[in-house]
Amino acid sequence: MKRYKVVFRPYNKAVEVEEGTKILEAAWMAGVYINNLCGGEGVCGECRVIISEGDVEREKDSLSFFSEEELAQGYALACQTYIKGDVIVDIPAEARLEEEKILLEAEDMDSEQIQRRLKIAPFKPIARKIFLELSPPTMEDNITDFERIARGLRKKIGWHSPEIDLLTLREISDVLREEEWKVTVTLVKDRNTYRIQRIEPSNRVDTNLGVAVDVGTTTIVAQLIDLRTGRILATRGEHNSQAQFGEDVISRIIYACDKGGLPTLHEAVIDNVNQLIDEMCLELKIPKEDINAVVAAGNTTMSHLFLKIPPCYIRLQPYVPSIDVYPQMRAMEVGIKLSERCILEVLPSVSSYVGGDIVAGVLACGIPESDEIIGLIDIGTNGEIAIGNKEWLVCCSASAGPAFEGGGTTCGMRATKGAIEKLEIRDGDVHYETIGGGRARGICGSGLIDCVYELVKNGIIQSSGKFNKDIKDARLNLDADIPYYIIADREETDTGKEIVISESDIDHLIKSKGAIFAAIKSLMEYIGLQFDQIHRFYVAGGFGNYLNIRKAISIGLLPDIEEDRIRFVGNTSLKGAKMALCSEEGFERCVAIAKSMTNIELSNYQPYMDEYVAALFLPHTDKRLFPSVDY
Amino acid sequence: MKRYKVVFRPYNKAVEVEEGTKILEAAWMAGVYINNLCGGEGVCGECRVIISEGDVEREKDSLSFFSEEELAQGYALACQTYIKGDVIVDIPAEARLEEEKILLEAEDMDSEQIQRRLKIAPFKPIARKIFLELSPPTMEDNITDFERIARGLRKKIGWHSPEIDLLTLREISDVLREEEWKVTVTLVKDRNTYRIQRIEPSNRVDTNLGVAVDVGTTTIVAQLIDLRTGRILATRGEHNSQAQFGEDVISRIIYACDKGGLPTLHEAVIDNVNQLIDEMCLELKIPKEDINAVVAAGNTTMSHLFLKIPPCYIRLQPYVPSIDVYPQMRAMEVGIKLSERCILEVLPSVSSYVGGDIVAGVLACGIPESDEIIGLIDIGTNGEIAIGNKEWLVCCSASAGPAFEGGGTTCGMRATKGAIEKLEIRDGDVHYETIGGGRARGICGSGLIDCVYELVKNGIIQSSGKFNKDIKDARLNLDADIPYYIIADREETDTGKEIVISESDIDHLIKSKGAIFAAIKSLMEYIGLQFDQIHRFYVAGGFGNYLNIRKAISIGLLPDIEEDRIRFVGNTSLKGAKMALCSEEGFERCVAIAKSMTNIELSNYQPYMDEYVAALFLPHTDKRLFPSVDY
Repeated sequence: MKRYKVVFRPYNKAVEVEEGTKILEAAWMAGVYINNLCGGEGVCGECRVIISEGDVEREKDSLSFFSEEELAQGYALACQTYIKGDVIVDIPAEARLEEEKILLEAEDMDSEQIQRRLKIAPFKPIARKIFLELSPPTMEDNITDFERIARGLRKKIGWHSPEIDLLTLREISDVLREEEWKVTVTLVKDRNTYRIQRIEPSNRVDTNLGVAVDVGTTTIVAQLIDLRTGRILATRGEHNSQAQFGEDVISRIIYACDKGGLPTLHEAVIDNVNQLIDEMCLELKIPKEDINAVVAAGNTTMSHLFLKIPPCYIRLQPYVPSIDVYPQMRAMEVGIKLSERCILEVLPSVSSYVGGDIVAGVLACGIPESDEIIGLIDIGTNGEIAIGNKEWLVCCSASAGPAFEGGGTTCGMRATKGAIEKLEIRDGDVHYETIGGGRARGICGSGLIDCVYELVKNGIIQSSGKFNKDIKDARLNLDADIPYYIIADREETDTGKEIVISESDIDHLIKSKGAIFAAIKSLMEYIGLQFDQIHRFYVAGGFGNYLNIRKAISIGLLPDIEEDRIRFVGNTSLKGAKMALCSEEGFERCVAIAKSMTNIELSNYQPYMDEYVAALFLPHTDKRLFPSVDY
Repeated sequence: MKRYKVVFRPYNKAVEVEEGTKILEAAWMAGVYINNLCGGEGVCGECRVIISEGDVEREKDSLSFFSEEELAQGYALACQTYIKGDVIVDIPAEARLEEEKILLEAEDMDSEQIQRRLKIAPFKPIARKIFLELSPPTMEDNITDFERIARGLRKKIGWHSPEIDLLTLREISDVLREEEWKVTVTLVKDRNTYRIQRIEPSNRVDTNLGVAVDVGTTTIVAQLIDLRTGRILATRGEHNSQAQFGEDVISRIIYACDKGGLPTLHEAVIDNVNQLIDEMCLELKIPKEDINAVVAAGNTTMSHLFLKIPPCYIRLQPYVPSIDVYPQMRAMEVGIKLSERCILEVLPSVSSYVGGDIVAGVLACGIPESDEIIGLIDIGTNGEIAIGNKEWLVCCSASAGPAFEGGGTTCGMRATKGAIEKLEIRDGDVHYETIGGGRARGICGSGLIDCVYELVKNGIIQSSGKFNKDIKDARLNLDADIPYYIIADREETDTGKEIVISESDIDHLIKSKGAIFAAIKSLMEYIGLQFDQIHRFYVAGGFGNYLNIRKAISIGLLPDIEEDRIRFVGNTSLKGAKMALCSEEGFERCVAIAKSMTNIELSNYQPYMDEYVAALFLPHTDKRLFPSVDY
């Protein structure tokens, strides 16, 4: 395959890459930081660069992020643009915010120091491979083998004193001499120290993998990451097998603590993770041995169950978890079937009901770096809201139920192949799109939101959520024990069963959206902010690739502000876990976020209860709060 | 049992203890430091105190350390004096050297801070138990369980952020609530951090044990220590089972590296340690679960084999060990059958041939705190010499063979029950004493030294080490293939076999003592010092309780200086290991010693070879070096 040279300005850093490499990947390789929020998925539009010279190929969808004038100037999204020849890339100021800061601090450094600093700052996985070519010992220089490696590391990347475990220590003397003092060292960051976790003969820096895991109450998602480039190699998700023992965290805590179910719940989630990793490695023909680090993010209860730490006192007043900043472990210590070298980090929690998933989301959304006030609404089985900027951070949590994750409703399903994710009712007919485009198998969170909106809009359900008994519609079955509406006939589904939404499903959804909206509103009032003071709301959750913001506002799930101030950002728990996996600094920021975020406890907070009751309408009992809603 | 109050002046620190407690133990309990070198065995005479008021009982032997005038003033050895009533003890300046330093530094502190400082400084085991009475969480104070413990520790003893491992983390929530927030935490020092290693309900500070191990080439000695008081509960030794695979480190390295014998050698020494610990625990009816820390000291090869680290390049030029400062481990990681909580530290080495045993010895002899120049001669299968003061440290090593440890000679044995340890020839008759006083089973190092001296003194052997063929003596058998001298008839021995010393045994001994004396002399000349500039020589080794310094000088093992400048201090490897076990600061000093000591490599040093050849006589080819020797 052809190789081309890419030069990044204004730094004049160059790298040679294979044809077809993404510009974002080339930047990582060159040690150049380009802002991006979505992890290179073409969603956030932050990685704006200017192709000043040379051939590239842009993904069509990515063009919509730019004006015609910008396109004429050569603008492109770094994550959606492939290299087809020697290229010169200019990074505009807005895409190099972080780097500017570093340059500012580094004013007194020489260029080499700046370069080194830049290389370390943006992309430095918590498990890194470093190739060392050491000089053999002589009588004049007969320091120990370990000290020779440590010295090599210091020369190359300037550490202090790395540690080493017994397992690796037993190997160093032979491995050093196997390929004439050329070795690849895997270096792991553990709190304030670095540890040599693995040593291999010759240059093996190209095989270094990591796994990011979102340990959700309803869904587990794992992502296999190339830790050399930060590239996502595969993503897999599945239902959390713990669900059979209880749908939400409270019922799982009861099962764990009152029925001796902790080992069962622990094994269930670990089995999930093992299966996801196995699937990805099998498909990509990648040896599991190459995985050096796992970073998991989950709510506090999930994190406890994942680690087999009793979660019992999370549920009981005064709501006390065992720990918030978890120690670093070996993945195998909790039963993850990976190399005994592979480390496991679980992202820290804030409180009993605001966990590492939210910390990951706050990191992924860049809230601690923002001058403006930013909100994050993470809609899962629990709904959590975090608001803040680089000065302060507050958060709260509300129990939402699994409806938005596709659980707890008659035909709900995860946002995966065959799920109805978009839906419109026109002239009595239901038009929908499924994920993957095939036959429908069920309806996911975003489909449910669309569905409820369309049902109200078309007068089929009332603001109360009850079916309008005056409507005649062949799809509407009012005579059933629980009345329902047919979304898809049995002839058109993949399962041969009809896909429906029942009055009880709608009731569930109203309670879920009511809990979340009440939490947003209570938190805003608690801190004394108006919606117009929030620069941007990021909405996260397992809705799949899509969330119709307009419709989500219209059912009263999201506040009625200008649509372009609300952005759907997908699974920020997973994205944050990936960022922490790929960046020591990212991981450290998670700890800082967890320690500095103020948790507002809503469970005994009367205004929240009032807000909740008021929100149990479509869109709300107080229609003045939703002036733009057209029904 | 009656309890009495002991007050230590000038600090006015008081403690209540049981009748019969040693003053040294009472001092440890009160957090008062009293100098001592020998670990409370009544040997070093450093723990001088004055009993100003009250009833005590002194061990008779300990009186010889004082003049009559001193005895009249109330002088006593703290480690040999038992409390029989309320007592006031004055600690004279010479016994509180360390403490004075602390007081000096602490001048600006208030008395409580001084007290705390004093308490921490002298006696702080690397695994400590701390009793915490915590306040239960409330809605206003609902920090995590872990943070509550950390806060409790900070309040009580002022740590920073302790770490915790998964095993203990899984227990904290239940244990905290078992006895109403009263818990005992075992805190372990690991490099720059503290780790919570165990948590137990209620107050369990009275069950905290440690094991110090001297991993010698010929002999393994283990000591069970009460980590609350520093008291030695039991000491056990046995032959290193590795000896069947080779007598010295070189032959063991060859067996490990050229014959795949590393696992075998590793298991042999670990089996030894397991057996010694089992024996001690069984005899004292102590549960092994209570052992929280093991500190081992050995030469570099032994330390590698103990940890199953390949020792192969120690033997080959340029003599490179895998590591010098070993990481902290769990004892079970190397196969020691103790609790999975129990940590293992192996004391750091200086070089391939100066190991943790010497580092321990330097610590035990207080060389790094000394203004005067002090020498340590550790006589084992290897002989190592360290010389220095608080400004500098140098060392070297010479292969001595196992003769002084009772190996490699016809009737040699370890310094244990039945070993002849003292010997005199008067009027053709051999008079000897055995360890334990029973029938003779063999002859240990100190007995061999006496024996060779007496044989020369009585003209039975010549300066060359050959038997004098002109002597008529019924004990002398000159007609055997290898001529020998009968020390004990078969009728008088425990084994029913006669105990003899052969010409070949004597030859071995001459080579051993020659190697050690040559090493001492070469090192002195290398650094440009004269013997009279050495304030004191400490002689260490597995000779048992006894070494006749006069006779050791006379055979040319030790330099001919004033006898009172040479002190036999026993097994300093074990003593240093115990000090490092009982004191974080002691452990840290070991690392500092290992890093700062300059190793002089004798193996390719021609002056050493010349000195060695010159020393192969009794006492030496150059008699001017031994002016005081009376033959």
